[in-house]
Amino acid sequence: MDEQKETRLEKQMQFILELDKIKSIIRQTYLSDATRKENDAEHSWHIAIMAVVLNEYYEDVDLLKVIKMVLMHDVVEIDAGDTFCYDEKANEDKAEREQKAAERIYHILPSDQAQEYKDLWYEFEEGQTKEAVFANILDRLQPIMLNFKTNGKLWIENNVSQQQVLKRNEKTLSGAREIANYLKNLLDKAVELGYLKK
Amino acid sequence: MDEQKETRLEKQMQFILELDKIKSIIRQTYLSDATRKENDAEHSWHIAIMAVVLNEYYEDVDLLKVIKMVLMHDVVEIDAGDTFCYDEKANEDKAEREQKAAERIYHILPSDQAQEYKDLWYEFEEGQTKEAVFANILDRLQPIMLNFKTNGKLWIENNVSQQQVLKRNEKTLSGAREIANYLKNLLDKAVELGYLKK
Repeated sequence: MDEQKETRLEKQMQFILELDKIKSIIRQTYLSDATRKENDAEHSWHIAIMAVVLNEYYEDVDLLKVIKMVLMHDVVEIDAGDTFCYDEKANEDKAEREQKAAERIYHILPSDQAQEYKDLWYEFEEGQTKEAVFANILDRLQPIMLNFKTNGKLWIENNVSQQQVLKRNEKTLSGAREIANYLKNLLDKAVELGYLKK
Repeated sequence: MDEQKETRLEKQMQFILELDKIKSIIRQTYLSDATRKENDAEHSWHIAIMAVVLNEYYEDVDLLKVIKMVLMHDVVEIDAGDTFCYDEKANEDKAEREQKAAERIYHILPSDQAQEYKDLWYEFEEGQTKEAVFANILDRLQPIMLNFKTNGKLWIENNVSQQQVLKRNEKTLSGAREIANYLKNLLDKAVELGYLKK
């Protein structure tokens, strides 16, 4: 019994240490002061904060489930890397690379936890439940806030249009009215200021 | 009504952007690959992950509350900076600096949220409730795991003794047996390997 429990804890600790690598996976988005690009751990922390603060706009959402989802939603990128959302070529085999990664990384854990967290990741990817919709909205809204704050640095570098951003944020626009309006206003202002192409 | 709600959301978004600065507050601890030191956002994310994974060892704990606590426990360091735990001089006025920071930063939010999160931070600092004890244990355990993984790099650089680490981790040692044993074994091994002074 004791030995079994120790093995369980060892697996958990190994998983926790493995996830340290997420701090070295660099995303496209710049920090709000534009000094460098952020990494997956910072991004995951930031949208977990957003889940806590903005939860009131999304009805009947299990906040704990959303937070678990966003804290771990980028775990697969330890093996699969970060794929820039507007890079069509890299997005072709993204699903396959990430699924393989999920099999390896989540299964460092005891099987019950491996299953729970992997299911949460699939739920996030499918984006159908209330929790997954909220998590996906946050995942897309956070970089927009940072991109705007840096005077559109990343958008300008990549020649991104308002249309592209709107398309990626359909869920946000058809979700909570307050957040949808906030986003629409921000993107209109971004075009006005020359951060985004019309 | 609408205008009032918009003001509320604007305050929340301003807080979320303010917290981006946490990604630039560097801690003493090295990443597990020792390439650089980690920042407060990465650390907070990592212990939130630990709260989720290790929750089963701590009975009757409100996990959502613990996660809120750890996600925001370093917010005050935006103004007060990170204080190295073994720097006695810097720790003298730490409480005062941090309290002033809490007043400024949490009050960017609407007053109900400002109060809730500030109360959570005080609860964390006092370390008396079950949730605060668990959060404090994680806050101290995470750097130990990283320090061990980097062959004691930080401990050796600062000439840290096993006694100092044991003293800072009394709560862990008197808490859940499995985690206490894990920590004791790790620290004994750290002495054996020369990572920590006897």
